Amino acid sequence: MKKPHGKHPVPVSQLRQDIVSGDWIVVATSRAKRAGAFIQERRETPDPKPTCPFENPQAAGNPEPLLWFGETRKDWTLQVIPNKYPAFGPGNCKARKGEGPYIEMDGSGFHEVIITRDHEKSLAEFSQAPAIEVLKAYRDRYRALMNEPCVRYIFIFHNHGRESGATISHPHSQLVAMPVIPGDVARSLGGAERYFSEKGSCVHCAMIDWERRRKARVIFENRSYIAYAPYASRTVFEVRVFPKKHEPRFEETSDQALPLLADALRLTLKKISAALKNPAYNFFIHTAPAENPEEYPYYHWHIEILPKITVWGAVEIGTGIEIITISPEDAAAFLRTGRA
Amino acid sequence: MKKPHGKHPVPVSQLRQDIVSGDWIVVATSRAKRAGAFIQERRETPDPKPTCPFENPQAAGNPEPLLWFGETRKDWTLQVIPNKYPAFGPGNCKARKGEGPYIEMDGSGFHEVIITRDHEKSLAEFSQAPAIEVLKAYRDRYRALMNEPCVRYIFIFHNHGRESGATISHPHSQLVAMPVIPGDVARSLGGAERYFSEKGSCVHCAMIDWERRRKARVIFENRSYIAYAPYASRTVFEVRVFPKKHEPRFEETSDQALPLLADALRLTLKKISAALKNPAYNFFIHTAPAENPEEYPYYHWHIEILPKITVWGAVEIGTGIEIITISPEDAAAFLRTGRA
Repeated sequence: MKKPHGKHPVPVSQLRQDIVSGDWIVVATSRAKRAGAFIQERRETPDPKPTCPFENPQAAGNPEPLLWFGETRKDWTLQVIPNKYPAFGPGNCKARKGEGPYIEMDGSGFHEVIITRDHEKSLAEFSQAPAIEVLKAYRDRYRALMNEPCVRYIFIFHNHGRESGATISHPHSQLVAMPVIPGDVARSLGGAERYFSEKGSCVHCAMIDWERRRKARVIFENRSYIAYAPYASRTVFEVRVFPKKHEPRFEETSDQALPLLADALRLTLKKISAALKNPAYNFFIHTAPAENPEEYPYYHWHIEILPKITVWGAVEIGTGIEIITISPEDAAAFLRTGRA
Repeated sequence: MKKPHGKHPVPVSQLRQDIVSGDWIVVATSRAKRAGAFIQERRETPDPKPTCPFENPQAAGNPEPLLWFGETRKDWTLQVIPNKYPAFGPGNCKARKGEGPYIEMDGSGFHEVIITRDHEKSLAEFSQAPAIEVLKAYRDRYRALMNEPCVRYIFIFHNHGRESGATISHPHSQLVAMPVIPGDVARSLGGAERYFSEKGSCVHCAMIDWERRRKARVIFENRSYIAYAPYASRTVFEVRVFPKKHEPRFEETSDQALPLLADALRLTLKKISAALKNPAYNFFIHTAPAENPEEYPYYHWHIEILPKITVWGAVEIGTGIEIITISPEDAAAFLRTGRA
């Protein structure tokens, strides 16, 4: 039994609210583990090179790249190709159909793959220059697709490791351009708008300001970007990367800003990789919608990095409340220093 | 390339909307697999019996059960105990605290474990009588806790297999009583209320009525309950079990109804287990909140069963849009018959 504390006993957990989405998470202190206990000896053998479809994408039957970087086309360092098995493609984005009471529409849009040259080297191991290329490719493909008539939202993401959903081990990111604004994004936009209309300021700016003063959850910071463990983390060791200046839209990131953004992302991933010994993770960009982007001045784009260390069970899947067993403060201290 | 179809090409996927939550899922037909391809040769060795904390829970340091069934206390067939490592427990449910811009409260509530006697036999292998005991335990513990002052929502769930988040292999379910209404549940309630105020009827009744006529997605049906693959499934082979009559609240299920409910659940799980060769899965009950339960006459309680066969990647985690690679219709046909 915990020792009583005044009228109430010491609680076994803390409910923390994500003040943007309104969702709750639980920090289960009664189940708390030391940071080191989350290190997994993950053994992932890379796919064999000779059959890897991303070693030479065109030889594997893909069309010429939509975008490439490198000294010459043959010596490409990064290329973007259409996904061979797309989740979104040509279709009618106007007609809503559906049998009986249901609603359905064509999965119209685009699905692209951003491939870096090395078969094994991941972003966490990149130097600045190739990391800039990755972010430039994200941005330039975003800009190329944002005015397509059916595109309402563009989602850029990266799955690292099989446990994160990556089915091909060769490092790659993906971009999906879709004809709907996803529910999670809509709620995030709605929360930011509500805060703005109540307080007259950006909710993410308020959090960034607090985190910079509080320091306990900050993992990395440079002149323009900050990475910190969110107060209401959805997984253990979650980290988010924000521009410190208020910026609603990722695609407006300038060439001048890319080096510092590349550093913030790759060095944060490097810290995660070093402390937790190359865990699987997902990261993705949340930004204002591609459709009517100027309508979201209150939003603040960012990157969310979610290590895949624990398994979401029925509570996470059925309620949306994630239970985490290390506090974001302890997680951040471990990621910052590599020491528990 | 797909063959063009009139003005528009054949789409590579279908977006389907969950008409209750408003969220979208993608049926990616360009990535579609045959049902048999989802069968996994899952090898899970049960924990060793001598160290299993649920073989003799009291000898393992747990208090006397909160509820038990069986001929005598010693010959228990099912028992309910408080969770030794609770996510919710004693605390102050009134005070909201939190540093800086954030909001936090004690994780006040209850966390219980419902344990069946056999070390390995799962619900899918149960005959009717022990399955009734499980549902009776769910209901009776729900009734015992619903009027506790801090309890706003009671969530009953079951994780089967390590991949689903079960950390102890001995079959067990759990109940958490919490001081908030979870976001996912609130959205589900909101969607049902909106439909009711627009159409004057229950959204789930409309879907059940359609599914019974359409038949393509129905997996099991008896006099009082129906199990079908939802039109907008969140995972491959998802199944939901509904009372056919409009019932907002699980805990009002009568003793007379329990045998048919037990059959609907165990025989549906049996079909899933047989067709997919004992996959890991989560199931949970969505019902009206425990706080002011009479305020949700438009809701329709149900059980959601989500096999854990594919991995949620960044799209699922970052947008809430799940991409499934077999249609719910094909999935249902396979579960019904065990044949692809």
